Amino acid sequence: MSGTYGPTGDAPRIDGRTPRQLRPVTLQRGWSKHAEGSVLVSFGDTKVLCTASLTEGVPRWRKGSGEGWVTAEYSMLPRATNTRGDRESVRGRIGGRTHEISRLIGRSLRAVVDFKALGENTVVLDCDVLQADGGTRTAAITGAYVALADAVAWAQSHKLVRAKAQPLTGTVSAVSVGIVGGTGLLDLCYEEDVRAETDMNVVCTGDGRFVEVQGTAEGEPFARSELDALLDLAVGGCAELDLLQREALGGLQ
Amino acid sequence: MSGTYGPTGDAPRIDGRTPRQLRPVTLQRGWSKHAEGSVLVSFGDTKVLCTASLTEGVPRWRKGSGEGWVTAEYSMLPRATNTRGDRESVRGRIGGRTHEISRLIGRSLRAVVDFKALGENTVVLDCDVLQADGGTRTAAITGAYVALADAVAWAQSHKLVRAKAQPLTGTVSAVSVGIVGGTGLLDLCYEEDVRAETDMNVVCTGDGRFVEVQGTAEGEPFARSELDALLDLAVGGCAELDLLQREALGGLQ
Amino acid sequence: MSGTYGPTGDAPRIDGRTPRQLRPVTLQRGWSKHAEGSVLVSFGDTKVLCTASLTEGVPRWRKGSGEGWVTAEYSMLPRATNTRGDRESVRGRIGGRTHEISRLIGRSLRAVVDFKALGENTVVLDCDVLQADGGTRTAAITGAYVALADAVAWAQSHKLVRAKAQPLTGTVSAVSVGIVGGTGLLDLCYEEDVRAETDMNVVCTGDGRFVEVQGTAEGEPFARSELDALLDLAVGGCAELDLLQREALGGLQ
Amino acid sequence: MSGTYGPTGDAPRIDGRTPRQLRPVTLQRGWSKHAEGSVLVSFGDTKVLCTASLTEGVPRWRKGSGEGWVTAEYSMLPRATNTRGDRESVRGRIGGRTHEISRLIGRSLRAVVDFKALGENTVVLDCDVLQADGGTRTAAITGAYVALADAVAWAQSHKLVRAKAQPLTGTVSAVSVGIVGGTGLLDLCYEEDVRAETDMNVVCTGDGRFVEVQGTAEGEPFARSELDALLDLAVGGCAELDLLQREALGGLQ
Amino acid sequence: MSGTYGPTGDAPRIDGRTPRQLRPVTLQRGWSKHAEGSVLVSFGDTKVLCTASLTEGVPRWRKGSGEGWVTAEYSMLPRATNTRGDRESVRGRIGGRTHEISRLIGRSLRAVVDFKALGENTVVLDCDVLQADGGTRTAAITGAYVALADAVAWAQSHKLVRAKAQPLTGTVSAVSVGIVGGTGLLDLCYEEDVRAETDMNVVCTGDGRFVEVQGTAEGEPFARSELDALLDLAVGGCAELDLLQREALGGLQ
Amino acid sequence: MSGTYGPTGDAPRIDGRTPRQLRPVTLQRGWSKHAEGSVLVSFGDTKVLCTASLTEGVPRWRKGSGEGWVTAEYSMLPRATNTRGDRESVRGRIGGRTHEISRLIGRSLRAVVDFKALGENTVVLDCDVLQADGGTRTAAITGAYVALADAVAWAQSHKLVRAKAQPLTGTVSAVSVGIVGGTGLLDLCYEEDVRAETDMNVVCTGDGRFVEVQGTAEGEPFARSELDALLDLAVGGCAELDLLQREALGGLQ
Repeated sequence: MSGTYGPTGDAPRIDGRTPRQLRPVTLQRGWSKHAEGSVLVSFGDTKVLCTASLTEGVPRWRKGSGEGWVTAEYSMLPRATNTRGDRESVRGRIGGRTHEISRLIGRSLRAVVDFKALGENTVVLDCDVLQADGGTRTAAITGAYVALADAVAWAQSHKLVRAKAQPLTGTVSAVSVGIVGGTGLLDLCYEEDVRAETDMNVVCTGDGRFVEVQGTAEGEPFARSELDALLDLAVGGCAELDLLQREALGGLQ
Repeated sequence: MSGTYGPTGDAPRIDGRTPRQLRPVTLQRGWSKHAEGSVLVSFGDTKVLCTASLTEGVPRWRKGSGEGWVTAEYSMLPRATNTRGDRESVRGRIGGRTHEISRLIGRSLRAVVDFKALGENTVVLDCDVLQADGGTRTAAITGAYVALADAVAWAQSHKLVRAKAQPLTGTVSAVSVGIVGGTGLLDLCYEEDVRAETDMNVVCTGDGRFVEVQGTAEGEPFARSELDALLDLAVGGCAELDLLQREALGGLQ
Repeated sequence: MSGTYGPTGDAPRIDGRTPRQLRPVTLQRGWSKHAEGSVLVSFGDTKVLCTASLTEGVPRWRKGSGEGWVTAEYSMLPRATNTRGDRESVRGRIGGRTHEISRLIGRSLRAVVDFKALGENTVVLDCDVLQADGGTRTAAITGAYVALADAVAWAQSHKLVRAKAQPLTGTVSAVSVGIVGGTGLLDLCYEEDVRAETDMNVVCTGDGRFVEVQGTAEGEPFARSELDALLDLAVGGCAELDLLQREALGGLQ
Repeated sequence: MSGTYGPTGDAPRIDGRTPRQLRPVTLQRGWSKHAEGSVLVSFGDTKVLCTASLTEGVPRWRKGSGEGWVTAEYSMLPRATNTRGDRESVRGRIGGRTHEISRLIGRSLRAVVDFKALGENTVVLDCDVLQADGGTRTAAITGAYVALADAVAWAQSHKLVRAKAQPLTGTVSAVSVGIVGGTGLLDLCYEEDVRAETDMNVVCTGDGRFVEVQGTAEGEPFARSELDALLDLAVGGCAELDLLQREALGGLQ
Repeated sequence: MSGTYGPTGDAPRIDGRTPRQLRPVTLQRGWSKHAEGSVLVSFGDTKVLCTASLTEGVPRWRKGSGEGWVTAEYSMLPRATNTRGDRESVRGRIGGRTHEISRLIGRSLRAVVDFKALGENTVVLDCDVLQADGGTRTAAITGAYVALADAVAWAQSHKLVRAKAQPLTGTVSAVSVGIVGGTGLLDLCYEEDVRAETDMNVVCTGDGRFVEVQGTAEGEPFARSELDALLDLAVGGCAELDLLQREALGGLQ
Repeated sequence: MSGTYGPTGDAPRIDGRTPRQLRPVTLQRGWSKHAEGSVLVSFGDTKVLCTASLTEGVPRWRKGSGEGWVTAEYSMLPRATNTRGDRESVRGRIGGRTHEISRLIGRSLRAVVDFKALGENTVVLDCDVLQADGGTRTAAITGAYVALADAVAWAQSHKLVRAKAQPLTGTVSAVSVGIVGGTGLLDLCYEEDVRAETDMNVVCTGDGRFVEVQGTAEGEPFARSELDALLDLAVGGCAELDLLQREALGGLQ
């Protein structure tokens, strides 16, 4: 992989995209009639249902602090993938990957929450993968942000949060990048993901700063120049997602 | 409750239906690209994603029998309901209700399967409730049948099942009936369900015979005449569902 | 199976009974010295120890309501059956069947309880199958009713329940019926149960109304006429059990 | 406590026994029709159902050795005691006490088994406490031995074990002893057990040797002279139990 | 085995010790900077890290009693032994042996605690086996006593326990003894332990009384004379350990 | 935080180190007599016992591939930290953080393993934190590498791996970096870690390439310039650790 990436000179990707191109992204709000916020997000064939449940009160360790809390749970339907996986409820334990992603989503969203402004309310984001085709955690973060924004708005209209409070300090989105066949690619689909030499998930705020950077060499360790180039690619992708999130929310922030 | 039911003379239901009227039912095939059969079924606001995973081979206790197997797992997303429930995978155990419904769905489908004709293949039906508004188990059975039919067709086109075999001996569908305020009602929505004095789930084959009858007095025990009237109502509902299933499958059987 | 049943013209059953005949039923009260009520019930070779534990107070969700609660737990000793099963405590999880039956027993007993009259007391019915030969759940319900009646009497004599209160609004019992070789039979033993084409458990109050009807086609779906005939058979069996329960309790109610 | 014990000069025990007297012991064989051996043993009000399940084959680690295996599982019904305990299957884990006693019973029985003579057969002893009044583990060992002997005889009559083989090298029984109010007592009932300063369970073979000695100071540590006196008491009790076991088995060995 | 033991005339042990000789014992205090008391104890190659965590307050069932509580948890690192064992946290359940030893350690320490003097404080002793070579439970008890003494001293210097209170009524230590090849041996190493015909763990107070005696015949049952000789051996070993404990604590008590 | 870091002008750290300085690091080989490789690693007060268990054979999914496997399990003793945590074996489930770190350690080591050269052997690295003071996962990776190298050497001397094979393609080590009070610091101790605005764990090979980069904004999101500066710091720290590892191994590679 060279230090620069661009559509010119690269072979087209498996689905015809250029290296710097996101898959088609949709953010369908109000998907569930019960939840305070709910979004069906798709990044190409990856579809995640994100629901935000807002309840008054906070976990015990946070009581009396005047501050709220935000947490997340990620899960995959058994047949979201090409071969059916066992249900974690049937196995009686949650796998390491599930825990790890749940924690990542929670941390990512908390980075843009002003807990004082949220007040003693708790939001649980459930991100259930209905169909998986790579990038389920990044789609989940991107969609969960929109569901969270809807839940906050709901709380303001129901007087649980002051109307003028700004519990969200900005947007947050995430995208995967990776090196496949020596080329840096944005937003890997499943087939690209399994072939990637290096795989990175990047969570950015709307103003281009980082909340989380997780890069892993699947095969060969990667050089600093490669890391730099992948970060450039990811920042560009998150900037696009920020626009889509704000568009979906009708101009919020 | 009197022994007969009908639109005449009864107060309209909460959603404007007559006592004998089903909610709008949709059966959206091919929802997931990975599964051998997949259907998003809705009975009004109740939405269940049913995927059928067909694999070669059978559980150990059935090996060498020449016969296949069909089983089901039912689950509810945490925010499918009005208040968020704990994930069973987080609690580390599956609740009694979940087990009971999974077993019911499996039994219901097996009633219309010719296991010899299916050969040593296993189909797992995953029924995940995305949104709940009463009747989730009956919607699941009705949708799972269509997903199963698609999986069987897939197996035939992939030579796992002989092209001329008829692994499905008929259709199967299910509907709830109940007595609410003394009146027998078909296909209860959630609000009706919680108010029902008697609640019954009936699983019927397309030719009007019973696979399962589960009637429960929630309050007062019910009389034989009431039981008879509810059975009439359910048989009528299943006949309509049978038509919808066959229509969705484009005239199968 | 024809629409009518009777001893005449039918081949004798495996244990010499006529189709409409119960197995010998015994209800041995006061089996355990610790429990507030305890009954060793037998339906032929099926033996279930039912103990009723009455404690002051109710689960949290019912506190302050002035109403009591009744619940049940069903379990089978590992060698209650012909081959030894794993203990559920060893496997670390409770099987679906166990949950389902526990819930059925609880619901059945609650149908004849006036919770206001019981006051804020909780009764837990433990139904442990010591030896299984078909019909364990129906024996459990029938025996648990008697244990519950004893526990209520104990509570009245200990001033936990007012002496003139009538926490039990009637009796409740249960019996299995099924179609075996085309013939409807009452109170199936294990060998009949495994051969049954249709299997039904019916829970009735002493006045002949239904609390629960659970009919399952094990093989062929069953017709309405068959269902009707099985219900007749079950109602007759429960009427006999009601007599035996009242006799055991020495004329109560 | 002085170094010698005897009926003379001691206050009668709570149930009228002398210090060296066992409670009434019964060993009811053939209690269950399914198990290869089954005994309902009672030591006073303590009642334990011991079933022996004999199956061909041994655990993997013992395959091909030509030797058999014997193991045990101990459990208590929820209302075997004065206040209802949680089921271990409901809690999803087995308590330390249960494990400890199961292991003790298994070890005790294995001490009198010639595994070569048993051949590659496995016997599982299930000891379920139906009613507890102290000494449940010692009653379980004493009863389980008789159930084991019956299972071995069954295996011999079914040609699983050679007719002339002697898989049991002797009898084994167990009894509790303790110091209560300074006096050494044999076979403690529950009320004595909770008041005991020192509590000891002793497992002996019929020829008076020890398989297991477990003495615990519940309050004050105990002196060597006390230990010696308690051992004398236990050896005497086990000798009586050995007679009762052989009597129950009709003169075996 | 003869009734007396001694170095004369016996073949030297595998590690050159005489029958009555302990392995080299070290008690390294203050091993962990976080715990209120911590001791790395070694009995030869057996190394156990014992930490004492003292917190204010007691379990619910003891609240308001004015008395404290002491409990213990024993565990083994996966590669403490010659072949790697599964982690109990990975298996999701704690084995019987682990429970049994945890309970033994807790009981042993409680025998020398004056709970009134301790006040409403709780001490948890964690005994983690870093390397196992026989006698892990006896090393754990011996080391845990020293860690407990340090935690009590810490509590006194931090005013959680009155300076003049004497929460410890004496020392407690433990040692294994066994019959190997007919000879009674003190403090068995692993190789001796697996070859032992009889294995006994004895817990003694510093004044030579017994807290716990657990003797098990691994092969042949053992005679009274053997039991007596083993007890003599153990009492001698514990007397030595008592000296080492008091030396390590710098003359306490 | 400015874009450059250095000792000049910065306030000394809590333990007197300069920003770019590691804590004292020790790598004590051969700590356990049982394991094929074992290292007690310390980064200041953080102490982790790393044992490598090498066994012939591989997990089922890798059989016949001719390639080996390396995996890791991370765990913390209950009192490794300032307040005692519950044992995961007692809770019956492994927390998300534990899983996440176990997976990270395994991935990191696999990055420097040539599985063909290892042959069909499996190495499990157990990393048990005996005392925690920040950086437990980075100390674990650094120590586990040395234990792995020892296990590989053991396998070569025991002919399980060919003498001339080079199963390790290089060294791997890890270090934490973070921004505390606006300053970038290397190898955070616990007190620094809890105050860090940004926390990053970096895993590098000996030749300065990246295996894993995990950066998390604990408070404010971080800018690209900050990320760059932290990476510089980490690369320098890992270069030092590489020297220490090779020194400990006596010049290997």
